[in-house]
Amino acid sequence: MAKQLLGKEVTAALNERIKADVAALKEKGINPTLGIIRVGENESDISYERGATKRCETLGVACEKILLPADATQEQVLAAVDKVNKDDNIHGVLLFRPLPKHLNQTEIENALDPAKDVDCMTDGSMSGVFTGKAVGFPPCTPQACMEILDHYGIDCTGKKAVVIGRSLVVGKPAAMMLIKKNATVTVCHTRTVDMPSVAREADILIVAAGRAGVVTKDYVAPGQTVIDVGINVNAEGKLCGDVAYAEVEPIVDAITPVPGGVGSVTTSVLVGHVVEAAKRKYL
Amino acid sequence: MAKQLLGKEVTAALNERIKADVAALKEKGINPTLGIIRVGENESDISYERGATKRCETLGVACEKILLPADATQEQVLAAVDKVNKDDNIHGVLLFRPLPKHLNQTEIENALDPAKDVDCMTDGSMSGVFTGKAVGFPPCTPQACMEILDHYGIDCTGKKAVVIGRSLVVGKPAAMMLIKKNATVTVCHTRTVDMPSVAREADILIVAAGRAGVVTKDYVAPGQTVIDVGINVNAEGKLCGDVAYAEVEPIVDAITPVPGGVGSVTTSVLVGHVVEAAKRKYL
Repeated sequence: MAKQLLGKEVTAALNERIKADVAALKEKGINPTLGIIRVGENESDISYERGATKRCETLGVACEKILLPADATQEQVLAAVDKVNKDDNIHGVLLFRPLPKHLNQTEIENALDPAKDVDCMTDGSMSGVFTGKAVGFPPCTPQACMEILDHYGIDCTGKKAVVIGRSLVVGKPAAMMLIKKNATVTVCHTRTVDMPSVAREADILIVAAGRAGVVTKDYVAPGQTVIDVGINVNAEGKLCGDVAYAEVEPIVDAITPVPGGVGSVTTSVLVGHVVEAAKRKYL
Repeated sequence: MAKQLLGKEVTAALNERIKADVAALKEKGINPTLGIIRVGENESDISYERGATKRCETLGVACEKILLPADATQEQVLAAVDKVNKDDNIHGVLLFRPLPKHLNQTEIENALDPAKDVDCMTDGSMSGVFTGKAVGFPPCTPQACMEILDHYGIDCTGKKAVVIGRSLVVGKPAAMMLIKKNATVTVCHTRTVDMPSVAREADILIVAAGRAGVVTKDYVAPGQTVIDVGINVNAEGKLCGDVAYAEVEPIVDAITPVPGGVGSVTTSVLVGHVVEAAKRKYL
């Protein structure tokens, strides 16, 4: 039976570190604050916002919201970004995307100061992920994967890591982060030939395929650590990952469940970025 | 015997495309121009500058030089960058690096308008390489590798590509470009365990190890295409690559020589970027 890599354990440890950083900042009179810009009333945005706000509260981080109507103009959204850029009391900014179609999203994304870009939407953050330098912040999901590996003491140096998926939100940044951790990294995607045989070679397998249960027992081998980034709803209406858990779990060494794995770590990573942004500026 | 992938053949084809683009621009009254900023009198900078200037001349692209003394101040170099940013008659800019140690190189690099960053030194260009979007330009050397693959009709889709090296100048951008070309890409580096066995799995092997002759016959297998990015001087004072050519060439399917391979393509790639920068702006 595989060891379960549990998001709640990782989050608990991460939260302790964040709380210590928040305390250190408050001692210096800095009140770490997340700015939230939301355009419109998208349900999943509101749900994520609720989670983020609650986590901020638990960890002693303040929230300031700027809510704009769904028909806000480009100028209105840019003005909101300019406002948070100039506000020294806001350290990190979450802007919900995709934005309504009438807006020029790229222009708005890059208007944000990369130093406050806690959700990797600016060219500065993208460059930071690619170069490994402390410019901006990486996306929260692949960083949650790294937090899980770190928490459970899974050393990447010299290991073979295989990433399934080449998105900008998970696959590519995860690959860059694993290279930085000295893994030999292979990126697979929809055009990969015989993916099972490539995946079986991995010591660490990160799955961000975006489709329920695509990673079957043919993709895995004994000794592997499997991190499942997928969040899907199956035919019975239940949350499930990209990994066919029931058949993979008995084979591999360690695995993240869904729910209760990667997804449950991302909110704390986001709040951690806000605190890190404040630390970079003041500590 | 392996097919030789010759830089001069790739360059000749590339130059024809560049000339056609230059003609189209000149018809519209645009005179594509490379701005060169050089601080000090570093010999290798001057040698590269000579090559670039000559290639520009051949291809109908103008050059404008700003030469600063080795003891130029941060303000002087930033003023030079500001000048080329504002000059609508300069379309691409080459700034020699590393800059003298007393200068803040990162600040100077990011002062350049990414739209004119033909040598991948800004966060904008880094983001462009990482995301695959047309922001800035990729570094010339990995793009020269892609030009060689394209010229010889070597399709990457579904192929296994292995990149040896994880530098920002070659390894990482080459990996991103190969992912975009639908290859399944593995990045190896100094911490990779049993690199020969990983390399032997490749259909396409890109070598940017930075050490003469490290890729021996143990690293290769029949059917492979080998692109050697290395430029080293051997014990006899001759130019040589990172691949032990004499023992590798008889095994593989196709290989670039050194000299006469990748290195001979990069200057045309640079000039091509200047012309592309002008095209993005005006065509």
